[in-house]
Amino acid sequence: MEQEQVEGSAFTVLPEGSITTPRGFKAAGVHCGLKKAERHDIGAIVCEVPAAAAGVYTTNVFQAAPIKVTRESVAAGSGLRAVIVNSGNANACTGKQGEDDAYAMRNEFAAAIGVAAEQVAVASTGVIGELLKMDKVRQGIAALPGRLAASYEASDDFCQAILTTDLVKKEVCVAVDIDGKTVHIAGASKGSGMIHPNMATMLGFVTTDAAVDHDALQQALRQITNLTFNMITVDGDTSTNDMLIAMASGLAGNSQLTQEHPDWPAFVAGLRYVCEVLAKAIARDGEGATKLVEVQVRGAVSDEAAQAIAKTVIGSSLVKSAMFGADANWGRVIAAVGRSGQPVNPETVDIRLGTIATLEQSRPVAFDEEEALAYLKGDTVVIGVDLHMGEGAATAWGCDLTYDYVRINAAYRT
Amino acid sequence: MEQEQVEGSAFTVLPEGSITTPRGFKAAGVHCGLKKAERHDIGAIVCEVPAAAAGVYTTNVFQAAPIKVTRESVAAGSGLRAVIVNSGNANACTGKQGEDDAYAMRNEFAAAIGVAAEQVAVASTGVIGELLKMDKVRQGIAALPGRLAASYEASDDFCQAILTTDLVKKEVCVAVDIDGKTVHIAGASKGSGMIHPNMATMLGFVTTDAAVDHDALQQALRQITNLTFNMITVDGDTSTNDMLIAMASGLAGNSQLTQEHPDWPAFVAGLRYVCEVLAKAIARDGEGATKLVEVQVRGAVSDEAAQAIAKTVIGSSLVKSAMFGADANWGRVIAAVGRSGQPVNPETVDIRLGTIATLEQSRPVAFDEEEALAYLKGDTVVIGVDLHMGEGAATAWGCDLTYDYVRINAAYRT
Repeated sequence: MEQEQVEGSAFTVLPEGSITTPRGFKAAGVHCGLKKAERHDIGAIVCEVPAAAAGVYTTNVFQAAPIKVTRESVAAGSGLRAVIVNSGNANACTGKQGEDDAYAMRNEFAAAIGVAAEQVAVASTGVIGELLKMDKVRQGIAALPGRLAASYEASDDFCQAILTTDLVKKEVCVAVDIDGKTVHIAGASKGSGMIHPNMATMLGFVTTDAAVDHDALQQALRQITNLTFNMITVDGDTSTNDMLIAMASGLAGNSQLTQEHPDWPAFVAGLRYVCEVLAKAIARDGEGATKLVEVQVRGAVSDEAAQAIAKTVIGSSLVKSAMFGADANWGRVIAAVGRSGQPVNPETVDIRLGTIATLEQSRPVAFDEEEALAYLKGDTVVIGVDLHMGEGAATAWGCDLTYDYVRINAAYRT
Repeated sequence: MEQEQVEGSAFTVLPEGSITTPRGFKAAGVHCGLKKAERHDIGAIVCEVPAAAAGVYTTNVFQAAPIKVTRESVAAGSGLRAVIVNSGNANACTGKQGEDDAYAMRNEFAAAIGVAAEQVAVASTGVIGELLKMDKVRQGIAALPGRLAASYEASDDFCQAILTTDLVKKEVCVAVDIDGKTVHIAGASKGSGMIHPNMATMLGFVTTDAAVDHDALQQALRQITNLTFNMITVDGDTSTNDMLIAMASGLAGNSQLTQEHPDWPAFVAGLRYVCEVLAKAIARDGEGATKLVEVQVRGAVSDEAAQAIAKTVIGSSLVKSAMFGADANWGRVIAAVGRSGQPVNPETVDIRLGTIATLEQSRPVAFDEEEALAYLKGDTVVIGVDLHMGEGAATAWGCDLTYDYVRINAAYRT
């Protein structure tokens, strides 16, 4: 298997790895009829042993029925044996019937694979406010167990099944050395619109064969989410269905990881890398996007201030439109910095586009417009902001605002 | 002059009124060369007596040079005799030279019309980070005094001169009975992009011939701004140049208005109407917009909560895209309500589109899709949200998100 060592890191990227590379996991995905098009729309990840599980959920006041059901399963503490996911329908704002449907989806899939109901998590993504077609879901539940496999193809089927307006699947796998054993951490995600810091219409599933303490995993997942999934935005909207679930099978044979384990930093670095790759992939695949935009803020009074400023810039429709047009309009960047609500010294701000300085100490710098145009036409643009006030730093990711974003969202339901 | 009585109100709309209808005011607008196209780009309002003045300014940390100059003039307390405004260049992020230019613009126009420098306010709007072409500005300063007139045409010249990407001018005039005297209140504004609550790339100028106490005028202007200009959004961005200036000539002959005057409520109602008309006109003329979207929130725990919820809904790119597509996607409305950060009972929300109920007590209501489509295709859409929690209410205004917004903003500088 081809491998890639990330410079300075303790882990290795496995380009042909998948969510079933960590020992103990199988996956599947099929078309059951929830999407109109003949595309996979229901999938599952199954673990052969109870996996230590952690979850992070949407902060939206309106939480879809599957969020409630999955919270219960993860909180039950008996470990997760599976997660079942459908796309095409979010099962949100569907009342008592929606809750009954989410429980039925969980309980019936648990029965189909012979595990306890509370060992199964449920996720849904798609249109809000319509009841799930349970006859279609049941066709999916019947078809999935026979398709479960530990293979790149089966993982691919799962990754395809969770997509909505996404154009590409998002999957990543790394290997980390823990106690001299090779531990794998892999992840799959979906998300394209209704994406904003503090979760998104974003589903993420992390598998690992590390033996890891549940509480330590939960804490690491939450902290890493704040630096990765919560630092992306496509359009400022936060979905009712966001969910990031991590499952650890423990089959790698390492001694159980906790914060005190000498290799804990290596595990956290691997987990953070997996989450960052998935988060950036969501930003790059934002609805209608033609490029990934990364905003790096440093010199802020605190990391929290830097995060808020980075999110304000990456969320600016004017900045996003300018990136689509490859327009070096740094004035919109500084306008966004200035309305972030964070401490900013209006006399000491630097702004650069890639390596091109456009503003230094809040004064315009003459730059080569042709060079800037060429840089901004690339598929990745980095906007650097240095406030020269303190040590706070943060990075946020997003995408450009394009005609296609409008086209996609002007008639999503129809 | 044709008149229109607004139902239940103490004022009369004068459809042919202008910012020079209030006694004492003249206006002018000319092309001096700051805009590439042969459109008016510099204008002025002049008052024949020192006018009691009040101002509200951008909250952006980066404040353009003219903001500083105008703050000084208004604070000087000797009343305003004039405001001079250019479009095509914001004179923002232009450093010491920019400040010098703003002072020169003020001082030279003051000299040209024979008043004290601190009796003149200055406003600029347009591109950020480029120095003003002062030779062009001086051509404008030389041409304006000879064009000043109290006429609909001269007012129209001024209104045209302050526009940037605006498609239409914004002007309104009302008459209010105070002490049995007819008092006029008129206003002109510009704003199309970089428009967001807490001011916008928004310039607003209110003229009135009422005799009104300076402090009372300032307080009323601030309170009314929070209910009008601060309740609109086009794209969530806040400009460095926003400014709303009110000038009261006192020539109507009424006894001086303060909060204790029996006709104070009538004056405030007229002023609020003027500001609301101008604010809604900016929202309707949002960059690329095809319609005005109004969000009415009621039943919130407080007016402040209702304001925050209304602004979150009106600012949602997904809601705005759906409005462009005439898609009755109330799921996006409830998702925005749920991420507003305000108290919301997830079981008791009603959502309606015009008079069409789509959600009642957080449960979907079957509605006629054809009827909804026909309604949403109109040029004004009202989204109603009732939280059934308290007495808090607010209204916000915005527009749809369209291909043209992206087109306009992908290459604004070029």
